[in-house]
Amino acid sequence: MKIILADSAGFCFGVKRATNLAFDAAEQFEHICSLGPIIHSPQVVKKLEEKGIKVIRKVEDIDHGAVIIRSHGITAEELDIIHDRELKIVDATCPFVKKAQDYATMLCNEGYSVVLVGEKDHPEVQGIISYTRGGEVFVVADCKEAQRLPNRPKLGIVAQTTQSFKNLQQIADICLGKSKEVRIFNTICDATSVRQNEARKIACEADLMLVVGGFNSANTTRLAQICQEIQPRTFHVETVEQIQDGWFEGVECVGITAGASTPRWIIDQVVERVSDMSK
Amino acid sequence: MKIILADSAGFCFGVKRATNLAFDAAEQFEHICSLGPIIHSPQVVKKLEEKGIKVIRKVEDIDHGAVIIRSHGITAEELDIIHDRELKIVDATCPFVKKAQDYATMLCNEGYSVVLVGEKDHPEVQGIISYTRGGEVFVVADCKEAQRLPNRPKLGIVAQTTQSFKNLQQIADICLGKSKEVRIFNTICDATSVRQNEARKIACEADLMLVVGGFNSANTTRLAQICQEIQPRTFHVETVEQIQDGWFEGVECVGITAGASTPRWIIDQVVERVSDMSK
Ligand code: F3S
Ligand code: F3S
Repeated sequence: MKIILADSAGFCFGVKRATNLAFDAAEQFEHICSLGPIIHSPQVVKKLEEKGIKVIRKVEDIDHGAVIIRSHGITAEELDIIHDRELKIVDATCPFVKKAQDYATMLCNEGYSVVLVGEKDHPEVQGIISYTRGGEVFVVADCKEAQRLPNRPKLGIVAQTTQSFKNLQQIADICLGKSKEVRIFNTICDATSVRQNEARKIACEADLMLVVGGFNSANTTRLAQICQEIQPRTFHVETVEQIQDGWFEGVECVGITAGASTPRWIIDQVVERVSDMSK
Repeated sequence: MKIILADSAGFCFGVKRATNLAFDAAEQFEHICSLGPIIHSPQVVKKLEEKGIKVIRKVEDIDHGAVIIRSHGITAEELDIIHDRELKIVDATCPFVKKAQDYATMLCNEGYSVVLVGEKDHPEVQGIISYTRGGEVFVVADCKEAQRLPNRPKLGIVAQTTQSFKNLQQIADICLGKSKEVRIFNTICDATSVRQNEARKIACEADLMLVVGGFNSANTTRLAQICQEIQPRTFHVETVEQIQDGWFEGVECVGITAGASTPRWIIDQVVERVSDMSK
């Protein structure tokens, strides 16, 4: 049985970096916590806890030691408290998120009103807004909201990293009717679209697709959906134990991909299980 | 008979300014010429000639005295020659055109590749390119040409002042797929669209439309076309003599507008002629 494992299966660059930083920091610091769970994977969070990294929800509850900032960042106000308390910082903010924060701040400093394409309650968006320190920022989720924007002399646009390109494009279009100068920083991270496109390609070649990741993970479920549309013989599994021999009757080529919060070792177990079956 | 005269009939701001500057300069300078005809109106050019302003096509042919730069500007190379020969300058470049020149130059200086939305052979476009002094400038007339643009780290967009907003918008859309930063200066002058929109509005109210301007003026012909679609009783006239009494039978409301190169005195003659008819 041939196995095609997606290059883009599992952690994106930013999540990989954040978990590595966390495991390293666990060795280095006696007293350490993360502000919220590092990633949406109970397995990973549990492993980190075993290494001594406690998950704490509110920055006010941390009084000493080191704190890990997770990949989608924190707000300027939280950072102020961390500095005030002289906590050690392990900054695992994804560099792509940091870029969006920096561009928004720069735009405000240069006199632009900022249009932030994203969901207003998302922590990443809240973080980006906070670093502008009271600059004029409009959070806009879609075209309908963009149409309600006021006219401004200079509009600067940044996007939450997980937005779709099409949404950014359509909102930029509308902004051009609201301002004589529009400056757009495309801060969209393509990890999700790259993963989905690769999954589509593999699903076309494989006789059976395995999509590995939490049943409560929105991006894994979406990935499984995309594969299913192309290859009806698609199975979404959380762990290797859920794989059944019966599925593979007559199968010559198995495609494997995984959601953004699926750790490497779970993917490896799945690959091994399928390989063993071929023997 | 009621008369509705369009506010936007005739000269735009830039052409009005240029002709005023020219008539003033004629008083001031002994030896004076314009580099190309100031506007596309033979009547105006003739009046200026009577005041001593000769039309000269090539800057190389001017060796002393003052030179008038017309509203759509000249190239940096022509300006260099003017400076070298120590000619006096009457700069009638429209401030809106100057803005497009300045933004393009600024964008090049700040490391942007410039996308100039316009017709590559138009003197205004040639002027804008020249001031960037060898910066990377792509002239793009439409979406098809925009699609062929290469990827660049930073794209800056400016437009020839007479471009349509829709064209700018669609090209900006495509550029967003070619660069992580796109900075758009909407340098479109709305004189033309304002004149056309006002003509549309008046044509809806009037029983008869008079559109005044040269038969060889593209923008006047377009204006007459727009009115005709709404009010079939539309007449395009070049001079007051062409107006015929018979046209006005049963007419209660006359709308009047004029192209961008139609001088005020010709419009006034038309208004007077129609007023006289009502008596
Ligand atoms: S966390 Fe991941 S999804 Fe993109 S913005 Fe960073 S690489
Ligand atoms: S010449 Fe006239 S059309 Fe606009 S760019 Fe200047 S006002």
